[in-house]
Formats: sequence, structure tokens, C-alpha cells
Amino acid sequence: MSTDKVTSPDSPLNRFIAVIPAGGVGTRLWPLSRAAAPKFLHDLTGSGSTLLRATYDRLEPLAGRRVLVVTGTAHRAAVCRQLPEVQESDLVLESEPKDSGAAIGLAAAILYQRDPDTIMGSFAADQVISPDHLFQQAVREAIHTAAAGKIVTIGIKPTHPSTGFGYIRAGEELNIEGAPSAQAVVEFVEKPDEEVAQQYVDSGEYVWNAGMFVAPVALMLRHLEANQPELFKGLQEIAQAWDTPERDVVTARVWPTLPKIAIDYAVAEPAAAAGDVAVVPGTFGWDDVGDFASVGRLNSAREVDDVTVIGEGARVFTENASGVVVSDTKRVIALIGIKDVVIVDTGDALLVTTKQHAQRVKGAVDALKASGDTDVL
Amino acid sequence: MSTDKVTSPDSPLNRFIAVIPAGGVGTRLWPLSRAAAPKFLHDLTGSGSTLLRATYDRLEPLAGRRVLVVTGTAHRAAVCRQLPEVQESDLVLESEPKDSGAAIGLAAAILYQRDPDTIMGSFAADQVISPDHLFQQAVREAIHTAAAGKIVTIGIKPTHPSTGFGYIRAGEELNIEGAPSAQAVVEFVEKPDEEVAQQYVDSGEYVWNAGMFVAPVALMLRHLEANQPELFKGLQEIAQAWDTPERDVVTARVWPTLPKIAIDYAVAEPAAAAGDVAVVPGTFGWDDVGDFASVGRLNSAREVDDVTVIGEGARVFTENASGVVVSDTKRVIALIGIKDVVIVDTGDALLVTTKQHAQRVKGAVDALKASGDTDVL
Repeated sequence: MSTDKVTSPDSPLNRFIAVIPAGGVGTRLWPLSRAAAPKFLHDLTGSGSTLLRATYDRLEPLAGRRVLVVTGTAHRAAVCRQLPEVQESDLVLESEPKDSGAAIGLAAAILYQRDPDTIMGSFAADQVISPDHLFQQAVREAIHTAAAGKIVTIGIKPTHPSTGFGYIRAGEELNIEGAPSAQAVVEFVEKPDEEVAQQYVDSGEYVWNAGMFVAPVALMLRHLEANQPELFKGLQEIAQAWDTPERDVVTARVWPTLPKIAIDYAVAEPAAAAGDVAVVPGTFGWDDVGDFASVGRLNSAREVDDVTVIGEGARVFTENASGVVVSDTKRVIALIGIKDVVIVDTGDALLVTTKQHAQRVKGAVDALKASGDTDVL
Repeated sequence: MSTDKVTSPDSPLNRFIAVIPAGGVGTRLWPLSRAAAPKFLHDLTGSGSTLLRATYDRLEPLAGRRVLVVTGTAHRAAVCRQLPEVQESDLVLESEPKDSGAAIGLAAAILYQRDPDTIMGSFAADQVISPDHLFQQAVREAIHTAAAGKIVTIGIKPTHPSTGFGYIRAGEELNIEGAPSAQAVVEFVEKPDEEVAQQYVDSGEYVWNAGMFVAPVALMLRHLEANQPELFKGLQEIAQAWDTPERDVVTARVWPTLPKIAIDYAVAEPAAAAGDVAVVPGTFGWDDVGDFASVGRLNSAREVDDVTVIGEGARVFTENASGVVVSDTKRVIALIGIKDVVIVDTGDALLVTTKQHAQRVKGAVDALKASGDTDVL
């Protein structure tokens, strides 16, 4: 990338390595997304790329091939197929899920072992972002801010008073060179109710917490050690063995013993309280593809009348219908006189709901789990 | 059956032979019902019997094994599996559809060749009737009326002002022994609009035309000869060869040349104009299973919350949903927050509509035909 080419040798941009946590089944996207084929392995935008591949490609101009991927053991083959560039030693496989504290913490610890001056940036594999250049500009600002000694979140300017996201309250401007929009973080706040969300939006002080952050690995680990010493110790043990022949043995022994905690509680919130967190408000479009209603919004390419059709094989016929059809089969699907419907058609499971109820898919998954119908989960 | 046992040797009941036309794809029940597996081959009531088998069993107390079945060549194997009692010579196979005039006319002509005193009764294979004894009682009255020289329709007392059926206007009582409720038919009328239908119901003079009739085969053929001499001639030619080694050769040669006309126009309406038609109003429950809304009404056996589920294999999960699910797959089907929905799930085609729009399924089938997607029709 031209931007990298003109970077001076001592620019903090050269210290950047991307981390992609590729986890989470995406239960609200069942039955398309499921344990064996989670959300990040699907092309939910009709772009021709899976969300994981799109995430990698979006980071490539900043990180080149300096990318660590953290995923479940079950997805190893699928991830390697999607990202053939990723080396064995840059693929962190979780034998069991341990939440984001362990996943991102281990990435930080491995990168620290390799080079303690590294600035890491963590970006989930299942989000949709556009345009890429505005995202990359925000990440560059975040890297410059991180180089000044901050853990930097990239927040999203809210487009509506969402009750589905946490918010970040931004404070004073930091005036960091190369990061004109960086601000201090006053606090992280949990998902608000509608009224509070509206106040947040009106105030102009709040951005959505998209779970993206950029930080010096040394600073990450310092906060992790202070707040979660046991987790820190386990991660250090694995990290020290990582680039040695002991990697698999040590990981297999230590990983299952690690405490489960989200990175927000393990690092971000205590660091914010200590004044160590900054935010760069992103002006790019962002969607966490939280349900099928948002899958429908993200796809404007193929419309059959008022129905958005996602899936190459589906043959969809409509009469007086609207909504979203997501199909990974080649079946004929006929919709007649039904509005705002959401249909997800897979080989062994079918979901029919409405855009209004798309958030409640998780309930069906829980019911299936409870009844023992786990073959389709 | 006890009723047959006490019948005197010269009772007209002994002259009765049943004819079951098993035709019609049942387009409004697509994708369950389709060319290769039409409506009459499905168990749409959850009774454990297909509509065809139930029709046969309902007639058996009256006809014994004296039953002729008329169906398409393509359904030969399926019909024989359903009705192993039916002999080769009692199975009339249409190499191409020629409408009810030819189908029922050929049955009449074959039966006339075998015994000109036969009273035939024609009952479509795809209707739902209950209770059987009230149906059988109406047929007995119709046989007695036919023996008095009438073509007798069995009409259905309307339960609501349907615009989906033709009506029959009943006239004076005929006072025939063994047929206390037989009346003359004044006229057949086409499907009315709603206002007219309401007038029909209010008058008490009209019954629904269910397409069931009982008649001396000789009288049937006399009217057929008078109104459709060409059709009559062709049918006679086949009938004379039927119980000879020439059956297949003659049928193959003559059948494709026959004119297409409904039995209503070829026989019933002109016969009514000539004063030769009577009606026995049936008091049994009757449903022509015209769409999936009626499939839902007919099945109260298996309910998952407010959803009627038809099909053994389907695993259905609902939350705040109502409607009908018809499945011939073993897929998991989850319905969330959707009301009065109609879902028909088959291996290669899926229909999603509402009870209100169930009648419009035919439009989807026409669209599929137009687009060349005939593999699922």
C-alpha cells in the first residue's frame, strides 16, 4: 500500500500487528450460522467474501501479513482455507472457549514475546465495515494514539439510539500528532434502555463500543497483570512456549485452567478508570450483523420484487411479499402474500420469522438445545 | 356390510358399482401436491390414509370390490400400492388427460358393456367426508333415485356463502321410495359472487355441487350420445375392446383423439335441462381440501402451540406463532413471532404464505411453469 511505502522507518505504523478473534457462533443467525459453520465463515453481504476473509483483506494494507488469528480448534481447516496466508505459528487455536480476555490476552502475550514494542489491533472477524479507507484511517489514528501510551478503542458514531450496543463516553481531545480525532475515554457504559440511548445520541459525547481496540502489547499486559494476575500468569506461560517445540504441550496443559472473563472487564474498563484509554471515533459504516434483519439491510444486490435474496442457489418466487430470504440450498422458495418475513433455509433446518422478531432467534436455539435437537445447532 | 346383507335380490343397491376418478394435480396444494404425487396420494387429514384410500374404504360398504378407478398412467404404481384390491381390468389409465367427460364416460361405457343395468356412482378421490354413514345413506338414496330413471347428484348443504363452488338449485320433492330427500334439479349454476352466494344460502334452495353423482349407465350414455356424439363413439369403441385382448391397442389408438370436455357440460347440464337430473342433499361434512387453509382446518390432531403440524417427520419449534406447517421432510422448522402462516416444506421446494393467501398458490405454480422451473411441479 502506498501509505505504508511513505511511512518513515520509525513510524509507529511499522510496529502494528493485527489480531483477528474469530469466535462466536452467531446464535441469532441460526440456522445459517451454527457451531460447525459460525457467522464469520459466511458471506452475509453478498460480496463474494466471507466476513473473516473481508476482515483480513481490510487489515492487509495496514498489517501486511502480520496477522494473528484466534479461533476454535473445530474451525482450523475452514480458517486455513479462507486465509491460506496465515502461518501455523500465527494461528491460535482454542481447545475450549475461554472468552475474550484469554483469547486477546494470549495474542498480546505472544506478540510481546516476539517484540515488546509491538502495537496490536484487535478486530472481530464477524463485522461488516465500509468504506475500507475510512476504517484504515481510523486505525492509523489509533496506532499513533497507542504509540503515545494509550489503549485505544475505535468507537462508532451512533446512527440511531440502539439498545443493542454498549456505549463509550468520550472526553477531552488528546491532540496527538497523527491522531487529530483522538479523545480520552471517560467511561464505558453498558447497553442502555431506549430513553438513555436517546440521551447518549443527543449529547454527541457517546459512541458505540464496537469491541475494536489498538494498544501497545506491553500496556495491555500491564493492565491484565494488575487486574487478572492468574490469567496473566497462565497466558505468559503459554506465550513463552509458543515459538518453541513445547507450544502444543504447554497450551494443552494451561489453556483449560484459565479463568473466563471478557477483555472489557479484564483490561478496558480498569484501564479507562486509570485514565489509560482513548477513543478514535470512526466515521465509517459499521454493522455487527446481529440478526437477519441486518443481513437484509446489508444486501441490496439481489432483489426479487421486495424480497432480498441471499444465497447463490435459491430460486425465489414472490407474489405480494417482502422481507429477506437467506438460503444455502438450491430449493425453490415461493412467498405469497407475506410481508417483512425472514426465511432462512438450510439443508436440515428452516427458520421462518419476521424482521421485528429477528432478535429472538436465540430463543429457538435455546429451545432446541433444551429438547436435545443439537444436531442442527 | 349388514346393510347389503338385508338387501333383497332385486334391490337397485345390487346394481351399484363405484367409479373413482383419481386425477387432478391439486395445484393449490403445491409443493406438497404435484404432478408426480398429486393430492389424492397424500394423507391430508392425519388419518393415516391417503385421500384415495379413504375414498375407497368409504365406498366399500356399498360397492364391495366393484370399483373402477380412473387415473393417469403416471400414477399406476402408486394407485396399485394404495388399492391392491383393484384388478387390472378395473383400472382405467389415461395416457393423457382428457377431462372428466372422457374419464367418467369411459367408465360408464365399460360398465354398460359388462351389464347395461348397472348403476354407477362417481366420487372424486381427493375429497374429505365424514361421517361415513351419512355419506353412505345419501348414496343409497341416490341409488334408489337413479333406479327411478334419474342422474342423481349428491349436493352439500352449504355451511357458508362460498364463492369457490358451483351451486345446484333444487326443486320439487320426488317422493321416491327409499329416497325420501330426493328432489328435482332446476339448474346448475356457476360459482357465484359473494352477494349472490349469500342469496343462495338464505333461500335454502341451493346446495354445493360436489361433483358426486349416481346414475344408470344407460341413461348417462344416452345423454352423452345426444350431446357429444364424437366422444360417445370413441368411448364405445374403447369399451367394446376393453375386456378383450385388444384393450391396450384400441385405447392407445382412440384415447388421444377424444375431445376434452367436462362431464358437467357433456351430460349433467343438458340432462338437467331435459328434466332428468335429481339431487340428494348430503348432510355429511364435506371438504374438497382446496387449499392449505382447509388442510389446517381438517387437522386438529397434532398442535404445537397454535400451529397445526401435518407430517410425521417434522420437528417444529414455535414461539408466539400460529398457522399450519405441512412437511414431508425431517427438517427442524422454527417459527418465531409469525401469525396465520402456512408453511409447506418438501425436499426441493418450500412455500411460505398465509391462510388468507392460501388460494393464490396456483399463481406461484403458474410463475414456475412460465420460468421453466418445471422440475418442482
